[in-house]
Formats: sequence, structure tokens, C-alpha cells
Amino acid sequence: SEQVYIGNYLLARLEQLGVKSMFGVPGDFNLGFLDLVEDHPTIDWIGNCNELNAAYAADGYARVKEQGLGVVLTTFGVGELSAINGIAGAFSEMVPVLHIAGVPSTAQQKLKPMLHHTLGDGRYDAYRKASEQFTISHAELQNSSTAAVEIDRVLTDCILHARPTYMTLPTDLVYTKISSERLKIPLSHLPPPNEPDEEEFVLSEIEKLVEEADNDVIVLVDACAIRHDVRKEVKELIQKTQFPVYSAPMGKTAVDETYERYGGIYVGSISHPEIKEKVESAKLILSIGSLKSDFNSGNFTYSIPTTRTVELHSSWTKIRYAGFPGIGMKQLLPKLTKRLHEVNAAARQIEVPKFVATVPEESDDVISHNWFWPRLSCFFKPKDVIVAETGTSSFGILDVPLPKDAVFLAQILWGSIGWTVGSTLGAALAARELGLGRTILFIGDGSLQLTVQELTSMLKKDLKPIIFLLNNSGYTIERYLHGKHRHYNDIVNWKWTSLLNVLGDVDGTKSKSYTVNNKKELSELLDNASFANAEVMQLVEVMMPMHDAPRALQVQAELSGKTNKYVA
Amino acid sequence: SEQVYIGNYLLARLEQLGVKSMFGVPGDFNLGFLDLVEDHPTIDWIGNCNELNAAYAADGYARVKEQGLGVVLTTFGVGELSAINGIAGAFSEMVPVLHIAGVPSTAQQKLKPMLHHTLGDGRYDAYRKASEQFTISHAELQNSSTAAVEIDRVLTDCILHARPTYMTLPTDLVYTKISSERLKIPLSHLPPPNEPDEEEFVLSEIEKLVEEADNDVIVLVDACAIRHDVRKEVKELIQKTQFPVYSAPMGKTAVDETYERYGGIYVGSISHPEIKEKVESAKLILSIGSLKSDFNSGNFTYSIPTTRTVELHSSWTKIRYAGFPGIGMKQLLPKLTKRLHEVNAAARQIEVPKFVATVPEESDDVISHNWFWPRLSCFFKPKDVIVAETGTSSFGILDVPLPKDAVFLAQILWGSIGWTVGSTLGAALAARELGLGRTILFIGDGSLQLTVQELTSMLKKDLKPIIFLLNNSGYTIERYLHGKHRHYNDIVNWKWTSLLNVLGDVDGTKSKSYTVNNKKELSELLDNASFANAEVMQLVEVMMPMHDAPRALQVQAELSGKTNKYVA
Ligand SMILES: Cc1ncc(C[n+]2csc(CCOP(=O)(O)OP(=O)(O)O)c2C)c(N)n1
Ligand SMILES: Cc1ncc(C[n+]2csc(CCOP(=O)(O)OP(=O)(O)O)c2C)c(N)n1
Ligand SMILES: [Mg+2]
Ligand SMILES: [Mg+2]
Repeated sequence: SEQVYIGNYLLARLEQLGVKSMFGVPGDFNLGFLDLVEDHPTIDWIGNCNELNAAYAADGYARVKEQGLGVVLTTFGVGELSAINGIAGAFSEMVPVLHIAGVPSTAQQKLKPMLHHTLGDGRYDAYRKASEQFTISHAELQNSSTAAVEIDRVLTDCILHARPTYMTLPTDLVYTKISSERLKIPLSHLPPPNEPDEEEFVLSEIEKLVEEADNDVIVLVDACAIRHDVRKEVKELIQKTQFPVYSAPMGKTAVDETYERYGGIYVGSISHPEIKEKVESAKLILSIGSLKSDFNSGNFTYSIPTTRTVELHSSWTKIRYAGFPGIGMKQLLPKLTKRLHEVNAAARQIEVPKFVATVPEESDDVISHNWFWPRLSCFFKPKDVIVAETGTSSFGILDVPLPKDAVFLAQILWGSIGWTVGSTLGAALAARELGLGRTILFIGDGSLQLTVQELTSMLKKDLKPIIFLLNNSGYTIERYLHGKHRHYNDIVNWKWTSLLNVLGDVDGTKSKSYTVNNKKELSELLDNASFANAEVMQLVEVMMPMHDAPRALQVQAELSGKTNKYVA
Repeated sequence: SEQVYIGNYLLARLEQLGVKSMFGVPGDFNLGFLDLVEDHPTIDWIGNCNELNAAYAADGYARVKEQGLGVVLTTFGVGELSAINGIAGAFSEMVPVLHIAGVPSTAQQKLKPMLHHTLGDGRYDAYRKASEQFTISHAELQNSSTAAVEIDRVLTDCILHARPTYMTLPTDLVYTKISSERLKIPLSHLPPPNEPDEEEFVLSEIEKLVEEADNDVIVLVDACAIRHDVRKEVKELIQKTQFPVYSAPMGKTAVDETYERYGGIYVGSISHPEIKEKVESAKLILSIGSLKSDFNSGNFTYSIPTTRTVELHSSWTKIRYAGFPGIGMKQLLPKLTKRLHEVNAAARQIEVPKFVATVPEESDDVISHNWFWPRLSCFFKPKDVIVAETGTSSFGILDVPLPKDAVFLAQILWGSIGWTVGSTLGAALAARELGLGRTILFIGDGSLQLTVQELTSMLKKDLKPIIFLLNNSGYTIERYLHGKHRHYNDIVNWKWTSLLNVLGDVDGTKSKSYTVNNKKELSELLDNASFANAEVMQLVEVMMPMHDAPRALQVQAELSGKTNKYVA
């Protein structure tokens, strides 16, 4: 059979899986592999400013590509450890990212000399041990006979479980030849089939409960519906059954937010009262892909008894108190839809509150959160990719309906600030590859300072995101939690509108920057067609009061304050 | 006895150890502790842009403070993992840094709810497990009865072994009261005493070898002489004995580089021929604090037989092939000096090459490395703190003698680029606290992009470093290793001279920026007294050719090329 370099075997697999952009930073242990990447006809090397940003970018890329994965390439020790928080975030939030670390040759791995980037004590396994905590599987490529199998294993684990995996690629193996035979069979995304009898039992049980509930059933979609790729199956289910559908924050856009039977965001006691009432009073809740983290559940304030809940997950099902490990939703959902579609006439009777955001009348011209988010809502278009940073942004966007086919990215569980700068880069690249709409980022002034340099990569790659930079003089979300007037929540104010010029748009042709000080200025900008159609990258500095936050954050902050003891 | 909050107990210990600046980023699990920090009369909260930079800053601070330590405070998960590469670097390079992670309350640690910043799977020990790889000890504060002992233990380990340690501080314990009794006894820096009989034996053995060598002995100082704080002891030894002294790259400035018996840098086959000859032909080499990493040893090309070597280390000694575990140099050195000081007349006969750097005459006006480093040499002043980033800078500076009492910082073993931006911040703060001279940074354009935001903290704290930014259109050091014309070694060119204005010097009063295109422009600037006396922070963009590198790097690159197989 044909022989290929191990490096090219890996790239061939990535190409099969739809990878067109690869993120990372060069270093002397990955330069050989980078030659192959640079010479690859369909995979583009992005080249990030630093490794954390690169990992974030791979994460954002994977989220928008769905069914695909993101890849980050780093160098031994210094590079891979710089990326680790990004990998841990992908683990936590269930995003398929492959982390490839270029490492010393197999000979050096055995001799363990005191190379640069080592800990100086001969431990060559420390980085892998650290990475293990944040990846579901890892492969340390050691020789030509196992390389292909190992590569296939970590790639399959990555895409099947939607979690990061880790691979070390020694300098010498990159150019070692192996058979290309295995490449003929593509890797599969499909989870293993459910056990038929058990699945049949589960279907009947759910059907029975639906009947008993008199069709007063609601569907609640959450993170894993997106991560484990059952959006189409969910759409079928809700359209055929006509059950009302709501979403948790992390499930936002799993269901089209303009869909007539969609009622908005349920987040425990933080929910709008009408939504809270509708969800919690339903006789049966069909929960799909639920993930009950603090910020995704209104600080654990779901008021839905287990006896009224059916939970569908990627690899298990729970009907009231009964668990069914091994029964995954990907295959269960279509069958469930078939069983239930007759209920639609009855289900239709149940009213769903309209999910709208009305721009309030306010007496002053200050840009308040209360006004800002509904106002932005009319700016969005179908297929836009909307990214919201942890802070006032990730809370503010929740109450606003997004258009049809919009993609929404936030890190509600992991919540590592600065993540959106990298992930916007990745998302914008993926959006361009897929022919989606604009990429629009909402980020706080504090968060942008963590990872700001990565804006340069957007300019380099001719991306045209619109960035709304919320300038509220520091860490406002934290001021709501603790330390309202503390200096540790202050930051240095930057000349934000000159930033893109410094970071690469030297002659001002590749970007535009604006400051908006009041409602009028912002409105005019939003209504300006040439702004909205984004011919170049744009940054809008939005001046907001230091002590203002969206409703949802204010409530969340009160709840958190009670669990965190900050003072004696 | 008096009762204090655990948070204040910790701060009292840090104050005793000379900590005056603390680095880190706020997060909701450390805000309570931050109140105590902000209210502390002598400890200043620096507040960094991101956690990696903060860890780097703590590292730079610790290096300049000596005998002290650096402290970095982060938040659970997202913050601590962002810092981990900085901590690993401190481990590798032996720098005492305490990493404090603010974590959920002790109650939550037991219940393990799915809080934000968790991995979503209930593992609350994953971050500690990762940190363990890069710290020599850790304490997870759990209750009031053990807190003081635990705090003292990790602090002592940190300063005694000059390695990072890790501590988790739960939100509730910060405000739990404990006895302040232990605070009355300060923590000790002193290593345990050597076993007297064994020490006596070791001293006699060394004395014998020195005699046999006919006083043809040289002293070679290295990293651990600085890290384990024996500079004074070494100075005594070389002055009393008059032995010629040389330094490895990581030992640069362990001995005053203007000292008449100092001959410059020995780095195996990369050394200047005269130095190489002198060192390798000596009958006995007294090696102090040696650390033989690739870049610190000319890619392992020391040509000094073990039979002619005595190695003194922090906690062990080696005489030719014989090891003496437990015999540390801190106490051994003064005794050795006493034994040997009679040799001085004979030792004096041995010639030491003068360590000077002459500015070469070059026919063109291009700023070459060959010219740049000797030219800079005359710019330095006693007590300057000089920081060199991995890349052409860390190699170029080696061949240049630094003035008396200069402090030199580089990361020759760990080599994580971007490190100098954070460490310059920390170093400049420490220098100000200690009344040292200017802080001067040499950094490549590629490296500055990794951590650039931290320049803002220098402005915020009114520091006045001089930054020489070597603009050579990308990753030049890598071009020498591999991929001379590859795009992955390119970077986006920034408008460097506008950077400081954007990052906080909005009205241009706190900084100055310059571009120098040729030798004349640079020379004029260096000779300008108001530039040299640095009233404000200054950034000098030095235009250099893409394909030029210092001699030492060119040789190192050739050697590395042979060990790394980059192509088929
Ligand atoms: C990596 C990381 N470091 C620290 C934190 C703690 N943190 C959470 S939100 C926040 C402040 C965000 O401020 P900003 O981006 O300005 O948002 P806003 O003012 O709109 O709330 C901080 C420091 C974090 N979540 N992640
Ligand atoms: C965190 C990290 N990422 C990547 C590398 C690999 N690396 C070593 S030097 C270098 C390029 C440095 O370029 P620059 O700062 O411009 O220095 P120059 O050699 O051009 O002066 C890179 C990418 C590293 N050492 N550390
Ligand atoms: Mg803010
Ligand atoms: Mg460069």
C-alpha cells in the first residue's frame, strides 16, 4: 500500500473531518510538522499571537463548525502549558478540540536530556500528566507501527464525545512513513446504537408519561443538544409534536428563537416570571441535553420535581428517578418523534409566551443595559454568529431573541474571560468557511485586556467581525458580586479606537473604530447600512455607566452573594 | 493569644518575608481576600491584565528581590490554569513563587456543586493535580486548626528550595480566625546545617585537589549560585583566592562582570575560543551551582573531564566521581574560602582574558547584532536591571559585559517567550523597592506580541523601564533553526511607537516612543542624557534585518539543527 509521512497521515485525517484552519504558535519542536501544514493544499495555518488565544480560537472554530473539530498546535512545555486553560475550557464546555504538542524526538524522550522547555529534573511526563486532567484521551506517538491507530483513536474520541484530546508528536516521527491504508475508511461521528429492547422500553415509558400529562408537556433544550449535535432531531420533535419549547442559557439557539412555539430562556428563579410559571407548572418536562451549572440554572433554583421530568442525554436517559445508562438521545429522538407526533393538536392548545425584547423608553440618553440589549436585537440578521463574553455581556444577551439560524457562543460554565477574543477569531473563520453571516462580539473592557493581541489575527486573515466593546470602567460584573468601589475592580482605560491601527491596520484601510456616548449615537450607527454590512473589521466602544448591569446579572449576583462568604 | 483572620495571617507572613507587591487577577473566589490585600498598609496589589502575565511578574519580582519571593493570586480553575505555564517556568528556573488560588468555600469543596469554573464533572481536585506537577509542595487549606502550619510549610518550602509552591484559599477560611502566636517566630531561609564530619572530609578533599592542581584552578559560576543566594560567599571565595572566574549564561552577573579576575561567559563549544581554552585547560574546575541545560552548555559541549571537576550545589557536593548528598554550598563556601585563601599569590599568576565588547567598524549603517550589543554595553550603568527575552536578545546579550551590581534576568532553560514583559514589570517594581537603577528590556517583536498588554501595568504603576523592541519582521531565532523563508515565522507588523499611547498613556505624558532605523539614530539616542535618565517609560523600536543574529545563536542553531530532525 501507499506510504505517507505520519505528519501527512494526521493532516489527511483532519482534512477528512473538515478542518480547514489550524491554530497555534510555532516552536522548535513543531517546525518540521509546520512545513507539512504550510504546504497542505486545503488546511490554512492561522498562526496566533500566543497559545492560550490559539486554544480559544480552536474552541470557537469547533463550536461553529459543529460536527467538526478545532485543532491547536503548540510546542513542548512552554506552548502546551500556555494553552491548558483553553483546553480545560473546551473540556468543561464539551467542545471537540485536538491539542497537538510538538515534542522532542523519540530518542530524546528516552534519554531525557536537559533540553530547553524542560523542568530541569528529567521529568518528561509532567506535561502529559497535567494535560490528562483536561482531556478525555491522549496519545503519545512512539513509533510507526501504532501511530495511525493512535491518531485515529484520539480523533474519534474527540469528535464522538465532543471533548478535547491530546497528542504528542515527536520531531522525528513527523517524517516517518506509514501505510495510508486506514485513510480509506473515514472516522465515524456516530455514537454506538442503543440496545433495542431497552430503547423500546424507554420509548414506551416516555409515551405513557406524555399521555398521563394530558399533553401538557414542555421541551427544555440545553447545552448538550448543541454539543452532541441533535438540533435537527429536536427541531423534528418540536415541530411534529407542537410541544412548547424553552431553552436554558447554554442551549440558546439550539432551537430557532423566532420559532412560534419557542418561549425564551428558562433559568430557574432568574427567569422572567411568565416563563418561570409556564415551565414549572407543566405536567411533564422533556429535558434535552441538560447541564445544571450555577449560572445555567439560576444558581440551582430549578423548581421542577424529578417526578415530572424526563432527561435525554448524549449517552443516557433518565425517566423520573429511573436511569437508563447507554440509551443516548441521538438515536432515541427520531423514534420518540415518531411515537409522539399524534399529540400535536392537543399540545398546540398550550400557550407559549412570545419571546420578544422591547426597547424601553428611558428619560435620559445614557446607554443602559436595559436599553442596549433590546436595541441590539433589531440589529441582528439571520445566520449571524453572536459571541458574548463572560461579564455583563453574557447575561445581557440572554433576554434578547436572536434571529433564525443565528449561532450563539458563550462560556457560561467555564467563564474564562478573554476567551471570546480567540473564539471570535475561530468562529469568524468557520463562519466564512460555511458561508454564514457576520460575526458579532460583545465584550467588556476588562476581558478584552486579557487577550487583546489576537485582534491582529483577524486583521491578518481579512476577517470582518463587529466588536462591541463595553467600556464601563472595569470589572462591573465583579462590582455586583463584591467590592463595588474597590480599586482591584478598576482597570486602565485604553484608547480603544486606536487599537486596531496599532495592531496591524497601519494605514487605516482594514478597519473602522467608533465611540458611542449615548443612545442617539449608537442608534444612528446601528441604522447605518454601511456599518451594518461590515466591509472591514469594526470596533465600537460603547460608553456605559460603571454601576449598571442587566437584570439577569443583578439577580444572579444576589444569589451568589449568599453562597460566597466574602466578609467576616 | 491574639486572634487574626487566616487571610491576615498569610499577609503578615508575606510582609515578614519582604513582599511589598502582589500580582494577579481578581475573580469571585478571591475577592474577599483581595479586600484584605487592598487594605494592607505595606502590600500593594498590582492587578495584572491576565494571569500568565501575573505569574511572570511574580517570577521577575522574586528574581530581583532575591531572598524574598513573588506572589501570584488567581481564581479557581480559569485563573490558576492560565498562570500554570508561568509557574512551571519558575519551577524549571528555580524561582520562589507562591501561587495562591482563591477557591470555593470548604462547604462547597465537600458538596462539589457544578459551579462556574468547574469541569462540570464534579472533579474538584483536577487543578491541584495539574499544579502538583510544577510546584514542590502544596497546601489545600481546609480548616482553622491546620491553616497556620500549612501556610508556614508552603512558604518555607518556597523560599528554602527556591521553587514555586501552591496554596488553595477557600472563600470562607479567609475570614476565619486563628491564633497569631506563630507569627512571633519568623520563617527561616537557612538550609539545614551540613553534617560536620562529612563536611570536614569534603573540605579536605577539595583542598587536596587544589594543591594537586598547583593552584591552576578556575571557578565557574552558574544559575544556582544566584538562585540559592551564595553570591556573597562566592565573592569572598574568589577575592580571597584570586582564582580566575567564569560564568555560564545562567550565571551571568552572579559575579560582577567588571571584576578584574572575571573572564566572561563559558558555554562549551560556543564560547569565545580564548575563554574555551582557558576554562578547559585548567587543572581543576570549581563549579558552583551548575545547571547543564542545552542552551546553558553550548548544547552539552562542555569539554571538562569529571576528574578535574568539583561541583558545589545547594544541597549536595560532587568531587570528581564521588557524590556527597546533604553537603550544601551555602555553609560549605565560607569554610572553603578560609581553607584556600593562602593560594592567592600563586592563583594570581594565572592570566584571565579581559571581558570586553568592542564596537566593530562596519561599512554600512544597518543595525546588525554584531554592532548592536557592544554598542549597548556602554549604555548600561551600575545597578541597572537588564532583562533579555528568549530569541536573538538572550543570545546577543551574553557576549556583552554588564556593569557592577547589574542584575541580569533571562529564561535560558525554560525559554517561554513573552515572559520578559511580565517579569520586567515585576523586576521594575522590585528594583524600585530596593533602590536599584533602571530596568532595561530587550525583546523581539514576536515575543512582545504574546504578552503585550502588561505594558499597561507599568504605566499604571508609574514605572519607567526602557524597552528595546527588536523589529526584525518575525521569529528570527526560529528562522535560524528551521524555516528561513516560511510564512509561519512571519508576524503582523505593529505600529509599535503608538502602542503605549493606546495602552494607557492617552495624553502622551507618561511615555516616549522612538524608532531607530540605523546606527546613527540609535547612537544619538543612547547618547542623549534625557533618554538615558528615563523620566518616563520609553520604547525604542530598533529596525534590524530579518536574517541577522548574534554569533552565539548562529552557532547554537547549527548544533540544534543536528539534534532535531526536521525533514525527511
Ligand atoms: C481568566 C479569568 N480571570 C478572572 C476571572 C474573574 N472575572 C470574571 S468576570 C471578570 C470581569 C470582567 O470585566 P469586563 O470584561 O469589563 O466585563 P463587565 O464590566 O461588562 O462585567 C473577572 C475579572 C475570570 N472569569 N476568568
Ligand atoms: C510560549 C512560547 N511559545 C513559542 C515558543 C517558540 N519560540 C521560541 S523563540 C520564538 C520566536 C521569537 O521571536 P522574536 O521575539 O521576534 O525574537 P527574534 O529572534 O526575532 O529576536 C518562538 C516562537 C516559545 N519559546 N515559547
Ligand atoms: Mg467592564
Ligand atoms: Mg523578531
